[in-house]
Amino acid sequence: MRLAFEEVKKTMQEILIKHGCSQEKAEKVAHEMGRNSLEGTYTHGINRFARLVRNIEEGIVNPEADPETIAEFGGMVRIDGHLGLGVINAWYAMEQAIEKAKLHGIGLAALKNTNHWMRAATYGCQACDAGMAGICFTNTIPNMPTWGAIDSRLGNNPIVFAFPRKGGHLIVDAAMSQFSYGALELACLQGRKMPVDAGFDAEGNLTREPEAVIQSRRILPTGYWKGAAMSFLLDVFASACSGGNNVCQIGKLEGDEHGVSQIFLAINYKALVPEAEAERIAEDAVSDLLASQKDDKTHRITYAGQKAGEAKKDNQANGILVDERVWSEILSL
Amino acid sequence: MRLAFEEVKKTMQEILIKHGCSQEKAEKVAHEMGRNSLEGTYTHGINRFARLVRNIEEGIVNPEADPETIAEFGGMVRIDGHLGLGVINAWYAMEQAIEKAKLHGIGLAALKNTNHWMRAATYGCQACDAGMAGICFTNTIPNMPTWGAIDSRLGNNPIVFAFPRKGGHLIVDAAMSQFSYGALELACLQGRKMPVDAGFDAEGNLTREPEAVIQSRRILPTGYWKGAAMSFLLDVFASACSGGNNVCQIGKLEGDEHGVSQIFLAINYKALVPEAEAERIAEDAVSDLLASQKDDKTHRITYAGQKAGEAKKDNQANGILVDERVWSEILSL
Repeated sequence: MRLAFEEVKKTMQEILIKHGCSQEKAEKVAHEMGRNSLEGTYTHGINRFARLVRNIEEGIVNPEADPETIAEFGGMVRIDGHLGLGVINAWYAMEQAIEKAKLHGIGLAALKNTNHWMRAATYGCQACDAGMAGICFTNTIPNMPTWGAIDSRLGNNPIVFAFPRKGGHLIVDAAMSQFSYGALELACLQGRKMPVDAGFDAEGNLTREPEAVIQSRRILPTGYWKGAAMSFLLDVFASACSGGNNVCQIGKLEGDEHGVSQIFLAINYKALVPEAEAERIAEDAVSDLLASQKDDKTHRITYAGQKAGEAKKDNQANGILVDERVWSEILSL
Repeated sequence: MRLAFEEVKKTMQEILIKHGCSQEKAEKVAHEMGRNSLEGTYTHGINRFARLVRNIEEGIVNPEADPETIAEFGGMVRIDGHLGLGVINAWYAMEQAIEKAKLHGIGLAALKNTNHWMRAATYGCQACDAGMAGICFTNTIPNMPTWGAIDSRLGNNPIVFAFPRKGGHLIVDAAMSQFSYGALELACLQGRKMPVDAGFDAEGNLTREPEAVIQSRRILPTGYWKGAAMSFLLDVFASACSGGNNVCQIGKLEGDEHGVSQIFLAINYKALVPEAEAERIAEDAVSDLLASQKDDKTHRITYAGQKAGEAKKDNQANGILVDERVWSEILSL
């Protein structure tokens, strides 16, 4: 079924209010989760909403908590999320980073005790919409073994780099695992192999068989050993700069993932480089990339962020693609 | 052969002075290139020295140029490298970022018109030695196709995340190509396959055969489509924030790679979090990672940065491993 953004948003908003969120918070969370689906990130939009409500019921997410600034120095701010709504906390943190960047050129917010921020790219977009370049990353529960290991002690810690552009922001939003378990499960259901190595099988051999990886729990870091090392450093940055939980500590908390640590950077680059010059350089990079000669197996070449813009146009015109079972579960909440 | 660090450094220093470098610049460049080999990054130490001297002779690297601050705002600084020595410019830029971070908590230096910085991790270490966390990245000549493309329009743009630690800094230094052409050529010579996918063959199939990739020039981005998108964003950040060349423009310059753009970030996290607390969190992450259960095929589990420390100890005790042909070429310069 395809539903209008406003309907989706209104429904989720009312459910959040019923579950203890203020009008303002419910409106914001429903808006961003609706927007995630609108822009094609279905996994972290409507499809994840029932889990958020469950997390509120379980007491893992406190809908009444407000983020609190607990330390400041120059362009940096440290925030305690008090286990509140992940979207509210993350939005607040990037807003603080943007405010700091107005004064100091660059701003950093380190956020501890927060919850899942849904779509990582949201906060990169937020910086771009304020005319700034953004970087943000989060840690997660342990869900990926380090290179050469069997047991999962790393998170898949997504990172975002976002640069503003009139014709559509440039955004990469990359988890440090090559595939999520969600993607593996979907492929399993559809009887598909993954297009590239997805992890190790029980014998320790690289495999594209999703079922083998789901069973071994040995999902593959993005870029093999490189993503393992990168994931580790992102965890150390996020946890040590915020004084929050690292991946290991998150793994010791009972229940669904909560209490994660995040970093938000806003870069007011227009204070350094004339805006038209920066724009020309970025535009030139996009044109050059899109002029690539495609191989026979490729439908087309895209730039990072292009598909979100296209999904948005399509979903605005035709309604958001929603799974009926997902929607009927939401209506029962 | 194995040579003492001091001998290696002195020899390179004298050659640089003969080629127009000041005493001070020659000392610094020789020190860092020697240190790269000392710490196990042989490709960007002694092995690359003859190429640097050639670049000076060709006029691509101007040994007399000094980096110049051309714009400043709050914690940010924009620097023109005037095509000087890459190591001198990059060191200066990270120093500026560190100085800014002392005042503003976080500092960013955007450097344009610079040359190859040799080992990316050098500047992450530099931030760590100043008690700060560091991030830096560079763009390069076009040397990698984007996802689905045949021709190379992306750079392999390495990025570094570095966090200080008493027992050895935590550092990831990852290029956005899974392997360098240097690594593929070495494997070819040794008749080895690569351990994982290295690129596409002429028919557009993923392959571990180094020769097939060298011939197709279709090297693989780190994490397939993810590294392609990440590389693109790193290029846009580095070029647009510095007002410097993007990868496309670098590709249009005649001769060996020059005129690249770089970003340096220093994070004075101790101004936000008590030092002992940050230290405990990072140390806890290291211990947990090292407690991973290794698989049968793995010799051991290491943390990011560990091997550099071990190479240093070994090379300090026994001398730096130097290829005799490389050394005799250097002695003839």
